[in-house]
Amino acid sequence: MEDVVIRTLEKVELRDPILVEGLPGVGNVGKLAADYLRDKLPTKPLAIIYSKFFPPQVYVGEDGVIRLVSNDLSYWKAPPSAAHDLLVLGGDYQGISPEGQYEITERVLDYCHQLGVREVFTLAGFAQGRVVESPRVLGAATNPRSVEALAKSGVVFSRNDPGGGLIGASGLFLGLGRLFGMEGACLMGETSGYFVDPRSAEAVLRVLGKVLHLEIDLTALEAKAKEIDRIAQKIHEAEQRTSEPTPTPGASPREDLGYIG
Amino acid sequence: MEDVVIRTLEKVELRDPILVEGLPGVGNVGKLAADYLRDKLPTKPLAIIYSKFFPPQVYVGEDGVIRLVSNDLSYWKAPPSAAHDLLVLGGDYQGISPEGQYEITERVLDYCHQLGVREVFTLAGFAQGRVVESPRVLGAATNPRSVEALAKSGVVFSRNDPGGGLIGASGLFLGLGRLFGMEGACLMGETSGYFVDPRSAEAVLRVLGKVLHLEIDLTALEAKAKEIDRIAQKIHEAEQRTSEPTPTPGASPREDLGYIG
Amino acid sequence: MEDVVIRTLEKVELRDPILVEGLPGVGNVGKLAADYLRDKLPTKPLAIIYSKFFPPQVYVGEDGVIRLVSNDLSYWKAPPSAAHDLLVLGGDYQGISPEGQYEITERVLDYCHQLGVREVFTLAGFAQGRVVESPRVLGAATNPRSVEALAKSGVVFSRNDPGGGLIGASGLFLGLGRLFGMEGACLMGETSGYFVDPRSAEAVLRVLGKVLHLEIDLTALEAKAKEIDRIAQKIHEAEQRTSEPTPTPGASPREDLGYIG
Amino acid sequence: MEDVVIRTLEKVELRDPILVEGLPGVGNVGKLAADYLRDKLPTKPLAIIYSKFFPPQVYVGEDGVIRLVSNDLSYWKAPPSAAHDLLVLGGDYQGISPEGQYEITERVLDYCHQLGVREVFTLAGFAQGRVVESPRVLGAATNPRSVEALAKSGVVFSRNDPGGGLIGASGLFLGLGRLFGMEGACLMGETSGYFVDPRSAEAVLRVLGKVLHLEIDLTALEAKAKEIDRIAQKIHEAEQRTSEPTPTPGASPREDLGYIG
Repeated sequence: MEDVVIRTLEKVELRDPILVEGLPGVGNVGKLAADYLRDKLPTKPLAIIYSKFFPPQVYVGEDGVIRLVSNDLSYWKAPPSAAHDLLVLGGDYQGISPEGQYEITERVLDYCHQLGVREVFTLAGFAQGRVVESPRVLGAATNPRSVEALAKSGVVFSRNDPGGGLIGASGLFLGLGRLFGMEGACLMGETSGYFVDPRSAEAVLRVLGKVLHLEIDLTALEAKAKEIDRIAQKIHEAEQRTSEPTPTPGASPREDLGYIG
Repeated sequence: MEDVVIRTLEKVELRDPILVEGLPGVGNVGKLAADYLRDKLPTKPLAIIYSKFFPPQVYVGEDGVIRLVSNDLSYWKAPPSAAHDLLVLGGDYQGISPEGQYEITERVLDYCHQLGVREVFTLAGFAQGRVVESPRVLGAATNPRSVEALAKSGVVFSRNDPGGGLIGASGLFLGLGRLFGMEGACLMGETSGYFVDPRSAEAVLRVLGKVLHLEIDLTALEAKAKEIDRIAQKIHEAEQRTSEPTPTPGASPREDLGYIG
Repeated sequence: MEDVVIRTLEKVELRDPILVEGLPGVGNVGKLAADYLRDKLPTKPLAIIYSKFFPPQVYVGEDGVIRLVSNDLSYWKAPPSAAHDLLVLGGDYQGISPEGQYEITERVLDYCHQLGVREVFTLAGFAQGRVVESPRVLGAATNPRSVEALAKSGVVFSRNDPGGGLIGASGLFLGLGRLFGMEGACLMGETSGYFVDPRSAEAVLRVLGKVLHLEIDLTALEAKAKEIDRIAQKIHEAEQRTSEPTPTPGASPREDLGYIG
Repeated sequence: MEDVVIRTLEKVELRDPILVEGLPGVGNVGKLAADYLRDKLPTKPLAIIYSKFFPPQVYVGEDGVIRLVSNDLSYWKAPPSAAHDLLVLGGDYQGISPEGQYEITERVLDYCHQLGVREVFTLAGFAQGRVVESPRVLGAATNPRSVEALAKSGVVFSRNDPGGGLIGASGLFLGLGRLFGMEGACLMGETSGYFVDPRSAEAVLRVLGKVLHLEIDLTALEAKAKEIDRIAQKIHEAEQRTSEPTPTPGASPREDLGYIG
């Protein structure tokens, strides 16, 4: 079979479309953000992407109906006042082998290039290994002008982060995108790396909205973030009761709780 | 070499054939069921499938003659009163890499599609992690109408099972089958996951027979199931003697045995 | 690059050639036997086989000159009285991935088929997990007539061995060879599995010589086997001194030594 | 996508160019040497090599700008008096799978062959498992004449080293290079295997300069080597204080330090 199979669901003409990518990864930040964006704009389905580089797996819905794992592209026709239509790439998995990641990314970029895409934003999480209360959004871009412009929108460019570079789709869509003449940037929401993190996804979308001049209603994501906070708080309290029966004198339990929540 | 080599043994014309797949997997339920079906109908050999995605291995028969590991298709010409001929796919292995699973499944589906197959049933085991005395048959299908129809034949559609979806050939034959315009369903016999489970295979074939309006004589499979029961019972008794020299007062040994048998 | 690159060193016409394969494996029996046969007949180099499915490695000779790892084919022009010329396949490695094993085997078989090969003997070791003083030669063949003929030459066909079949080149050259219309057999010398075993290789060549009506002078291999015996004996004695300072009364040290040597 | 993508940055005519390869490996000796050579000659960029056999990764510079991992070729136009122009191959990674190593090496060799390359030097480290104060440069070559010539330039050809041959790019560029009719040699600087080792790289470049009749100013590499020495010395002193609170009488601390530095 073809390494990557792209099924077009609808033929569309798009105006200077920008691709926004968000696939599963650290804290699922990229996927949460892309899925939310896809639902809120709202977008329409454009194409489904199957590949032998995904796991050999189907999902079964609550109605008992199966669906082969995939990535998917949806599009958003911007109002006439806006300069760019949008394409949003989401999905169940990144390619499960290094070669697979290259193959899938290259094919999707080629497809998007034919649709007129010349700019890519990739959304991701950046694991800090500790709880992050107010996640910053770190950035990396394909050229110095983009770095400058993003910095003005509040994106943090850190000399040392991410030290090892970007691994996976969020990096590859930029790196291979360059070979298609595309410019772009990666927006990385800080996250602990231990939780699925809607608050970090919210921070990422807030920046993306500013950069793309988009109004994105973030209420539902904010609610989701608060729910996760409540769960984390409860887990923390349960751990407190279990592991610290005799609190160290002078240590305020409130301070400690503050650390998580 | 070609990734997948299909050797046709006999040219046949089939009437709206339905493909039934059963390869090695959880409790070997799918393979037991497909092999039994192939022998009982009885079917005739149609094609042998070799692939570099199988292990580099030959089996040696009791007569000293070798045979390269393979999958195989056999066919059954239904009586004129029936609507569909059958194709049964069995074999030694599933593809041993994810890509290999996709490649083999796609090639076999393509081959079957050319033979006129438009419907696929995949047979599998569903591991419950505990002994199952009266295995139910869980289902997943490619469309809501099939779900409804199968539910009437006693197939259980559970909101949460299988939670992670179907992995391997049983899922892929449905998922990739959709790309060939095929409809179908997976029938999963509940099983412990610890034993080869002919009783679960029997349950699966009972449902399949009902769905396909086939009379399948299950006597021999029933006998095999009873033999496995006897072996399990003996292992259990041996473990009892070893690990519980002083029975807990009040615990009935009979109840405990009942748990296995 | 091509998956498998075969460099022909000399164009030759061969008379109904038979292929004898012996690559590294259990006890290195197959490789020892094939290398010995190649040197003793003696054969001439015919072709070198490179592949990306071998390790990315060169060997450095004692003279400081490098050589890319490979397999190699050499040929032997039999005297006019004999029915068959011979091809001997040896080398540094088997393919290091399952797919690689299939690819290499298929390409070499295709090449040999074009040279007129219709019969294949594969040489291998069969690990018994215990020291074997007088190794038998077990067999497996592509058809019942060969089984019968080989049995008359002293090859042992055991109902249960090898239970899991043959894995690797020795099996694949027969299994894939069938797809080229070739017949053949595998000769497996019993071996412990712990040592490189020239004695087992000797047993295999003795049978092969009988089957192919070849005179093979086995003196040098016999000498090598005795050398290994001496080394094993010394290791055993050293272990005796270390691990058994006070011998169990009644146990004869001689019997024990006899177990190894 | 293509397995290996080579982007030519500038069309150049080269005079009997020699390829010098140095990629990451033991002690990073090869990469240190090649990178230093590239900067010091100085060379100009000729081509960038991307591949799906590299990790799916981009690096982020201190300026926040990303760069897809790659290998790179640069060229040096020698003065008219010299016989050969040079090509230097460096980069972030070797191929991460055995097949990938073959594919990348073969494509780069093919590219270099078209540029007229007929001779290759590969630079590498040779792990001794102990600190090496005055690293020797071991060699391996594609023919006996090169061995002889290199030995006169101080390269050590050892009967037993490297025992297992050369694994990875340094071996493969010679081994596959032979298939393109190229001759060449590997220069291996002795190194501990525990540190990045500029001193070993220096030794390698000193030999390479002699062999290629090149003046290479090694001052900066020498300075780097001394810096590493200082760091190693400090680590060693810290370990001394931690693990040996009461020095063995008669053992001179100075001797011990000498062991590292």
